[in-house]
Amino acid sequence: MSNTTNTYPLLDSIDDPSALRKLDRRQLPQLADELRTFLVSSVAKTGGHLSSNLGTVELTIALHYVFDTPYDRLVWDVGHQTYVHKALTGRRAGMDRLRMHGGISGFPKRCESEYDTFGVGHSSTSISAALGMAVAARMKGETRKTVAVIGDGAMSAGQPFEALNNGGVTDADLLVVLNDNDMSISPPVGALNRHLARLFSGSTFNAARRAGEKMLGVAPSLLEFARRAEEHVKGMLTPGTMFEEFGFNYIGPIDGHDLDSLIPTLQNLKNLRGPQFLHIITKKGQGYQQAEANPILYHGVSKFQPEVGILEGKGGGKPTYTQIFGDWLCDMAAADKRLVAITPAMGEGSGMIRFARQYPDRYFDVGIAEQHAATFAAGLACEGLKPVLAIYSTFLQRGYDQLLHDIALQNLPVVLALDRGGLVGADGPTHHGAFDLSFMTCIPNMVIMAPADENECRRMLTTAFRYDGPAAVRYPRGSGMGVAIEPELNELPLGKGEIRRRGRSVALLAFGSMLAPALAAGEELGATVANMRFVKPIDRDLILELAAEHTLLVSLEENALVGGAGSEVARVLEEAGCPTPLLRLGLPDRFVEHGDQSLLLAELGLDRAGIVATVRERLGAAPLLRTVA
Amino acid sequence: MSNTTNTYPLLDSIDDPSALRKLDRRQLPQLADELRTFLVSSVAKTGGHLSSNLGTVELTIALHYVFDTPYDRLVWDVGHQTYVHKALTGRRAGMDRLRMHGGISGFPKRCESEYDTFGVGHSSTSISAALGMAVAARMKGETRKTVAVIGDGAMSAGQPFEALNNGGVTDADLLVVLNDNDMSISPPVGALNRHLARLFSGSTFNAARRAGEKMLGVAPSLLEFARRAEEHVKGMLTPGTMFEEFGFNYIGPIDGHDLDSLIPTLQNLKNLRGPQFLHIITKKGQGYQQAEANPILYHGVSKFQPEVGILEGKGGGKPTYTQIFGDWLCDMAAADKRLVAITPAMGEGSGMIRFARQYPDRYFDVGIAEQHAATFAAGLACEGLKPVLAIYSTFLQRGYDQLLHDIALQNLPVVLALDRGGLVGADGPTHHGAFDLSFMTCIPNMVIMAPADENECRRMLTTAFRYDGPAAVRYPRGSGMGVAIEPELNELPLGKGEIRRRGRSVALLAFGSMLAPALAAGEELGATVANMRFVKPIDRDLILELAAEHTLLVSLEENALVGGAGSEVARVLEEAGCPTPLLRLGLPDRFVEHGDQSLLLAELGLDRAGIVATVRERLGAAPLLRTVA
Repeated sequence: MSNTTNTYPLLDSIDDPSALRKLDRRQLPQLADELRTFLVSSVAKTGGHLSSNLGTVELTIALHYVFDTPYDRLVWDVGHQTYVHKALTGRRAGMDRLRMHGGISGFPKRCESEYDTFGVGHSSTSISAALGMAVAARMKGETRKTVAVIGDGAMSAGQPFEALNNGGVTDADLLVVLNDNDMSISPPVGALNRHLARLFSGSTFNAARRAGEKMLGVAPSLLEFARRAEEHVKGMLTPGTMFEEFGFNYIGPIDGHDLDSLIPTLQNLKNLRGPQFLHIITKKGQGYQQAEANPILYHGVSKFQPEVGILEGKGGGKPTYTQIFGDWLCDMAAADKRLVAITPAMGEGSGMIRFARQYPDRYFDVGIAEQHAATFAAGLACEGLKPVLAIYSTFLQRGYDQLLHDIALQNLPVVLALDRGGLVGADGPTHHGAFDLSFMTCIPNMVIMAPADENECRRMLTTAFRYDGPAAVRYPRGSGMGVAIEPELNELPLGKGEIRRRGRSVALLAFGSMLAPALAAGEELGATVANMRFVKPIDRDLILELAAEHTLLVSLEENALVGGAGSEVARVLEEAGCPTPLLRLGLPDRFVEHGDQSLLLAELGLDRAGIVATVRERLGAAPLLRTVA
Repeated sequence: MSNTTNTYPLLDSIDDPSALRKLDRRQLPQLADELRTFLVSSVAKTGGHLSSNLGTVELTIALHYVFDTPYDRLVWDVGHQTYVHKALTGRRAGMDRLRMHGGISGFPKRCESEYDTFGVGHSSTSISAALGMAVAARMKGETRKTVAVIGDGAMSAGQPFEALNNGGVTDADLLVVLNDNDMSISPPVGALNRHLARLFSGSTFNAARRAGEKMLGVAPSLLEFARRAEEHVKGMLTPGTMFEEFGFNYIGPIDGHDLDSLIPTLQNLKNLRGPQFLHIITKKGQGYQQAEANPILYHGVSKFQPEVGILEGKGGGKPTYTQIFGDWLCDMAAADKRLVAITPAMGEGSGMIRFARQYPDRYFDVGIAEQHAATFAAGLACEGLKPVLAIYSTFLQRGYDQLLHDIALQNLPVVLALDRGGLVGADGPTHHGAFDLSFMTCIPNMVIMAPADENECRRMLTTAFRYDGPAAVRYPRGSGMGVAIEPELNELPLGKGEIRRRGRSVALLAFGSMLAPALAAGEELGATVANMRFVKPIDRDLILELAAEHTLLVSLEENALVGGAGSEVARVLEEAGCPTPLLRLGLPDRFVEHGDQSLLLAELGLDRAGIVATVRERLGAAPLLRTVA
């Protein structure tokens, strides 16, 4: 890396990829070095994704060097590996406000740059989107090329197979680059990964190639056989059989950190017509020792000192809801041996590491496969086990039909531990858990709870576990109020909320995370505050009691206003013919951008001050109806 | 087939599979004949699925003969091929009320029989569910076997790959039977199918096997190579490479109508441990000439005369909404060459046959792949094309995350032509489009329309097509009021409803299909009737105007009451502080069973009489608030 006063002599000269393409190929390794220095320094200041970005430095350089971006289209899967892409496409200065409110996104975003061809955040969509673009180019008679870059982790989802299956029969000029780094967020799982791992080892690959060539020289009859079964002979010699079977021309595996392999290969592929598949091998964290040694720790990081690295195990603050869940899972597993736990590739993020270690036979990481995860859980439940499906709110959107049909329609006892319900902060609109209450509440048979504090989360998980049907506990990202956690496994009464503060005129009906600001606002307003606990079945008696005693009800939730918990409060009032007016507070009917959680909530009027202001405005605006005693 | 007075001498003796297992193997072909006679005769009387059931007669016999059902678990994918299974498991008498209200379901259903291990309706879930059961059996120390039966069409979805990827690394005793009949509902598409079709042809298969054997005898060095690349050599000799790469032991392909192949093969497989994969070839419609000749026509049938077959092209009644869509699609394609149309394997069902013929280059049948379909549409839209995604309401649940992120978050102009919105009738709870308004309304940027008649459907499709963002038109199964269809492509004003009848006191706010019964009820009640047209953006002005002029508003929708259109009416009233009470009519918060559409609607109080009764009850029950003028 450079030691001159200017750390980035080459990088400073690149405002966009056309400047990159003017560089001599021999300069590119130095550019890669500068980008790594920049990445570590930048992410150390802002936090963000590190390992995956260090792993794709050369690939990003090579793609922009070979392809005529933005005319040619690059579609990045998941998208958290696009920091180099952002730095090379005019956004390096913006990286110092990465993932901050008003700053640039941690993911590609169409409105941010013409180089960001497709917005992303969840994995496994790139081949589908790129195929659409490639087909469109063909229909419009444009000669542009389209490239999808997808990791091996993302290949454990079904959607890429749907896309390959469709892409293999088009003659669209689509290049799929499989970035095989042997790690999604958790270490990758599943048979496909095992297959890839076995096959990319150079020795097997080369021995097979040599043996194959020798064999093909043996006898004319074999050559004829080879012609007849061309694809399968090829499959024998290279690891790409599966992708060839989908109709793609498979090339690889090649070293994804070697620009002298990458660039000529991409140049060749650029000139081929039809669906192409390039398999490259990279290393997450490449070039930064600490990250190479512990790519999971450096997957998504907070601010740190580059020379020192991340200091592990400081912690010591309030436990997060994720930890509360992880502890509950181990405790309940000890108490009931029917418990099994499932994660779609989010074991760490969901707090299941200790459980996985203590109960390896009862832990199922099924890969990035939310559809399968939900149906698999249903299958386990059919046989009398008690599955706990730990899944981020936003990822449950991927298994919606399976939740509806396989779990809820059959009324099977599956616990959904929904982490990251509500706003998640820096990851932004693709990761906010903004819709779960809306899309789950309409499902018959569901029980849906939202804890207001840590101990309530534990009790709700117990309640869900002992309930003989589908039950979801939806908790927020981060830590809670810091209340004491009881060691017991106690339930809560089904469908019952509680009054937490007695006041007058106004009753605040808080769901989950909104209890804390509601209590603060209630203090200021002199209002009654209820902790509703259950979104479904909702506490009808409590709502009507509060309606009878107050002149205004205010529902509060960290979920879309449309169809959320407040919508159910309204339905209760309506069905009872109760005229007490309702004011509904929650997330607006637009996608909420990224930024600090508390900042976003304040901006949306969902903190103490916002609640007080909105309620006061409402009280001032319209005379309230008096309910009939 | 038997000509004695008793048509079913063997079948009559079988009350459950244990009786079947007492038969001599040589009797089974006769049983197969009897079952075919029974199937044709039974389905001719009730309507239902025919081709697929004729294709699985021998497989079903063989599975129950070899496996110890219900202790061993059979999981059927999709499930409309389970009539023989039902007939052999004590439900033959019930087949005369198949798919009728109160009668047995057209799909497996856990509450109907202990032999129905997993409820189903949508495709591609069987391997996931069966894997869950097999893992549970292993954990509980039970020796039961679990078998998933999946068609080649269902394999075009991603979920089976997620399940194979997970299943290949377990040591669970799971047998997957791939029933390769070269047809899902539409002819199958995609690279995988092409691959299967090419490989199962006996000649290639056998030639390859012979050549391979010869080759392996050539030289010791080759044997060593063979050992080193064992799986790939095997892949060269059999078509199962792909499944072997997922870690399954692949056997096949074998003739799925030959009991002398099926039974010994299944007996062998039953004794093997770990994940097994059997590939069988069957013919849809096998044994009934008319169905063999036209399996698509005989896929799902109404009543017909067995000797004559289905009389095509009678029709002549009112056009269905599906036809309205198909005609609009062709007209709009002629008017705007940016239009492209996408179907996830439902070209016939969605009325796209004429379009596919007239515009083959603009027609994309992507297979049973709703996730891919949605993202692929988004990719096409990114490049300036105008994709129309035709999808049944219930199947959109499979692409929910992709709708949310890839289409709506990016605000891309994709038209969703949602067929089968509302109750669908005989197919029951897995096919009712009961939730789409709830799960779509919470999505920002969406425009959602529901036509009240055929011409409005056409105008809404035009409106959606010309709108620069995601827009859904949700129409019901079957035909409408029979209004004249204008040839022009006219839009409707965005977000505006209309008053169709002026009355007093009560205003009925009808969404889509509910306008017809609302008009009839309005006549009887002397009520005002509005055709709301838009669920989102909802016509706020019209609602408030009606609220000011009436003492009761009644919203009517063929969607779940929770979070549906009525929920948005409530929100408008609430935000305006409007005290006019709202009565919300729609589908209850439970799964609605199968049965005739009009019968179900009547039972749910959503026909004229039901609406009148509910409104009168409400008027009698509580004195209405008078709105402040």
